Amino acid sequence: MLIDAGQAAELLLAQERVRILAHQNPDGDTLGCSFALWNVLHNLGRKALVECPSGFPERFSFLYEGYIPDEFDGGFLAALDVASPHMLREEHRNAPVDLCIDHHSSNAGYASQLCLEPDAAAACQLLLEVIRRMNAEITPRIATCLYTGLATDTGCFRFSNTSAATLRCAAELLELGAAQADVNERLFETTTRELLQLEQQVMAGLRYFGKGRIALITITQQMLRETGVSEPEMDGISNLPKRIQGVEIGVTLREKPEGGLRVSLRTRRTVDAAQICGAFGGGGHLRAAGCTLREEEVQRLIALCESALPAGEERP
Amino acid sequence: MLIDAGQAAELLLAQERVRILAHQNPDGDTLGCSFALWNVLHNLGRKALVECPSGFPERFSFLYEGYIPDEFDGGFLAALDVASPHMLREEHRNAPVDLCIDHHSSNAGYASQLCLEPDAAAACQLLLEVIRRMNAEITPRIATCLYTGLATDTGCFRFSNTSAATLRCAAELLELGAAQADVNERLFETTTRELLQLEQQVMAGLRYFGKGRIALITITQQMLRETGVSEPEMDGISNLPKRIQGVEIGVTLREKPEGGLRVSLRTRRTVDAAQICGAFGGGGHLRAAGCTLREEEVQRLIALCESALPAGEERP
Repeated sequence: MLIDAGQAAELLLAQERVRILAHQNPDGDTLGCSFALWNVLHNLGRKALVECPSGFPERFSFLYEGYIPDEFDGGFLAALDVASPHMLREEHRNAPVDLCIDHHSSNAGYASQLCLEPDAAAACQLLLEVIRRMNAEITPRIATCLYTGLATDTGCFRFSNTSAATLRCAAELLELGAAQADVNERLFETTTRELLQLEQQVMAGLRYFGKGRIALITITQQMLRETGVSEPEMDGISNLPKRIQGVEIGVTLREKPEGGLRVSLRTRRTVDAAQICGAFGGGGHLRAAGCTLREEEVQRLIALCESALPAGEERP
Repeated sequence: MLIDAGQAAELLLAQERVRILAHQNPDGDTLGCSFALWNVLHNLGRKALVECPSGFPERFSFLYEGYIPDEFDGGFLAALDVASPHMLREEHRNAPVDLCIDHHSSNAGYASQLCLEPDAAAACQLLLEVIRRMNAEITPRIATCLYTGLATDTGCFRFSNTSAATLRCAAELLELGAAQADVNERLFETTTRELLQLEQQVMAGLRYFGKGRIALITITQQMLRETGVSEPEMDGISNLPKRIQGVEIGVTLREKPEGGLRVSLRTRRTVDAAQICGAFGGGGHLRAAGCTLREEEVQRLIALCESALPAGEERP
């Protein structure tokens, strides 16, 4: 059943024990929501804990500073920013989740009560409204958690999902004491030596096709071994080739440990990334999609990219 | 004389011919202000033109699309985002400027009337208020100009000068039709092949000092010749060393054509960049400063940086 922020607030206030569920490979939004809600419930004297199938990444350690999970069995299940039950722990995939607060228009509707706002740039934006309806105090710690979700899901207000409402929500969170400078420095101004080294190696192998309108990079297993960079750390790399002026399709090939290549495609303007990846059994969005390839299929991928380029402008 | 936004609005409305002055080496804020005001005056049937000692960079071409300077001699002089008369054309340095609208707390107070808001992240934030007081229509084109100033002066809302007021101002500009996605993609998501190549070369020569807490890069004249990158294009490079995890002082050395080195220092936390650069006759801010060195003084600069590092954490 679809419910609004006020109803979600009432439902949460009626609980004594809440099991907060974050999605696997957690990002700043699911974790920001989870620890914001944990703090709210904790401050209200309720028992609560946060569960995530893949643990809490070090990168977000500031979100779970001072977090002490309460111990209890069962409890009310609240999934935050979780579009599909497949992103939850095994045991929650088939049992009913009581409440889901989310902003993905693709939400599978798996929860008994769904509070959904597809226009929100982040689930944190919607959760702020829910917390306000709970009449709970929004402490600086809670504001920091919510700010983190907002900032990470919008590339720090750079992506086009940043709406006037998103910016106003961020403004309120700053006024409530969100640690903006610290969060931005940690998440957007810091890279590791290892990642920098990997980027150097990867960009040294940059190749152009389609008269400079396609740029391709390859991340080999050897590079990963040499630099020691882990999978989640290199998320941003696949955005690099598309940033180059004149490039309309950025292709990132990643060697898989078991052989074969994982492809990430990023496009500008009119090129449909999902359609190209679809030809290889993959999919995704208009501007960002992925698929898996055998080494010998790379030529075909490039040919498909070339034929997808709109006529017109070419780099001299 | 210090005046407020309302008085600045009245003053501007009383003019028939306005010569808008942007500062040399113009950035998005001075140009965003200038073309926003030009459009406002033009739409009100006044004569206006924009002057900049160093011309209008290609990178900001979207700001001056459709701009046709009116022809006139003299006129009311309005300097926007110009902290000092030294940043104006020779001929305006000693003649009185009628009005200055600015946000630099260091403003030299050179104009007859000064409308100053040091808490504003960008002069565009203050100019929006002035334009509102003029009761002028804020078209999408004007909103785009003002948004550009706001976004460029805050690193797209990432820097700590981004306040709640800045975010609310940006929210309004989006509602007024600012071309957010286009501006962000042009200014924050695009790099040139040449710049990428220069970054590769520069980062390949990265050196660490102070147990990894100081990172130093050098941009040589040869690199500039080989890649063809121009001075204003490489503004962002001096931020690179400080981004590395564990680095507290980022040092960028730039060979000058006539010999000697231009230093840019960027620091985190407690290190005072202006103090270090002051020892070499330079200066700047707490977290960003500059100076000029002879080749043989680099060792002394590094020694000064090392002694400025706070005791404590060291990178293993």
